[in-house]
Amino acid sequence: MSTQFETQLMAARVDVEAALGAYLGPVALGGRVPARLRAAMQHAVLGGGKRFRPFLVLESARLFGASQRAAMAVAAALECIHCYSLAHDDLPAMDNDVLRRGQPTVWAAFDEWTAILAGDSLLTLAFEIIAAPSADIPAEVLGPLTVALARAAGADGMVGGQVYDLAADRLREPKSASLEHVRQLQAMKTGALIRFACVAGPMLARSSVDDVARMQRYGDALGFAFQISDDLLDVTGDVAAVGKAVAKDAVQGKATLVSLHGVEGARRVLQETQASAVDALSIYGERARTLIDAVEFMGSRQS
Amino acid sequence: MSTQFETQLMAARVDVEAALGAYLGPVALGGRVPARLRAAMQHAVLGGGKRFRPFLVLESARLFGASQRAAMAVAAALECIHCYSLAHDDLPAMDNDVLRRGQPTVWAAFDEWTAILAGDSLLTLAFEIIAAPSADIPAEVLGPLTVALARAAGADGMVGGQVYDLAADRLREPKSASLEHVRQLQAMKTGALIRFACVAGPMLARSSVDDVARMQRYGDALGFAFQISDDLLDVTGDVAAVGKAVAKDAVQGKATLVSLHGVEGARRVLQETQASAVDALSIYGERARTLIDAVEFMGSRQS
Repeated sequence: MSTQFETQLMAARVDVEAALGAYLGPVALGGRVPARLRAAMQHAVLGGGKRFRPFLVLESARLFGASQRAAMAVAAALECIHCYSLAHDDLPAMDNDVLRRGQPTVWAAFDEWTAILAGDSLLTLAFEIIAAPSADIPAEVLGPLTVALARAAGADGMVGGQVYDLAADRLREPKSASLEHVRQLQAMKTGALIRFACVAGPMLARSSVDDVARMQRYGDALGFAFQISDDLLDVTGDVAAVGKAVAKDAVQGKATLVSLHGVEGARRVLQETQASAVDALSIYGERARTLIDAVEFMGSRQS
Repeated sequence: MSTQFETQLMAARVDVEAALGAYLGPVALGGRVPARLRAAMQHAVLGGGKRFRPFLVLESARLFGASQRAAMAVAAALECIHCYSLAHDDLPAMDNDVLRRGQPTVWAAFDEWTAILAGDSLLTLAFEIIAAPSADIPAEVLGPLTVALARAAGADGMVGGQVYDLAADRLREPKSASLEHVRQLQAMKTGALIRFACVAGPMLARSSVDDVARMQRYGDALGFAFQISDDLLDVTGDVAAVGKAVAKDAVQGKATLVSLHGVEGARRVLQETQASAVDALSIYGERARTLIDAVEFMGSRQS
């Protein structure tokens, strides 16, 4: 990982957290919001994280010359959706996790009903953020962008993937632990939001259909690389660096890329996927340097 | 209640349910949606109900000459949000209800995690529905309309109201059972969506600020009337007609308009509120007949 990339990722993180802090402040949220609800929303969103999805939105916008103001709104909205999904996934009725990024999860810090409602509020807020006049998203872009975000986040995307994941575990459904099944589940559960982050840039810039298609290819490969590296971390990482429980997949007998291919096999698939992500950007040359470095980062992350 | 009004309400209900059925069909939702998730979403939305909010959207759109196609999309989106909120409110961690409209609640029919995720999907779907090209909402209206819907549904509206409601119950917070507190809670928890339904029409039609303000006044009064009649039904209704548990408020020692004013006092406030709703529409004369009848309906409903 290049030092330059780390610096860029950190700079984006600082900007994104400032924007999120403002969106979750008492003035922006509205004067009637219960203090407890606002505290839980802030706990869910402002508790750290790499802000990798927002970074991708900002960089894909930069590559295509879209407004950085509009991109920041989309980045913040996307992070609200990512964080709501973590708050709900961590609930006792789902993954029953008490630790996330080394901190108590939202339900552990507050309680279940507060965590459910904080998640609901964050999901709702995401759509308010991109539709607000201050987001400065061109009127003719807002519709397609909202549809893309909702599709990525909803029943045909992230939430659907979570249902497949839990159904295999809870309902003792016959696990079709094929590579194809694991990939589809991943493409929905974690891939859909990453893909959206990558196409948000060309959509905001009203770039060509070809540009959107290339960024989709890039986003799909990057999202898959992200999942493989996550599965690898679950096996090879240590809890202090990862900041949450590890080896959960193996204990639960969950089918992952690693359980299907072994550690070495998964590393090979990761490398192939990384190459395919870089290939999708080849037409942009050095202008896409940061997004190319992001692919490299996927292969070397420790948390 | 006029027979004509009943007929109109029923006609709107049939149209709205057809639209909802299409939005929740396998083609519209997307081919990757898990069957279990789709079934739970359908259970949450298609299990009956008066469809009063969608009716208000359609009628407010008609009064100001907005596209009925656009109004139907907004009506369906609003009903998805209303139904997601019921699915979440009924959860064991919240109101712990097993019966709704005479049917098992979503978590009782499926399980907790499925009900949480079905709710999340419906909330997400609402924003997809209004942003989709088929909704035919003018590009310059989509932004303000989305903000209004999100505000009504989120932390400063419906969800915030639910937090106030549960906090009083669960956290043994000092109950400031003043009329003002009960009204603010109601204005957020149930009033915000009803107000949105009433302003959606003039917003879609790009009517004047004065028209929007009048429909806000109407919506606020109607929403309050709705809540008082709901509180009255909890005391005076019977479970077969209401289709859910009654007398829950009294058992829980909850502050309501009825507990504050008594049954007769609450009936008086209801009548005053009804008069104020009708007054807001006076400038429109007989063109607002259906919306005026809706106010009357509030006072006489049995379920």
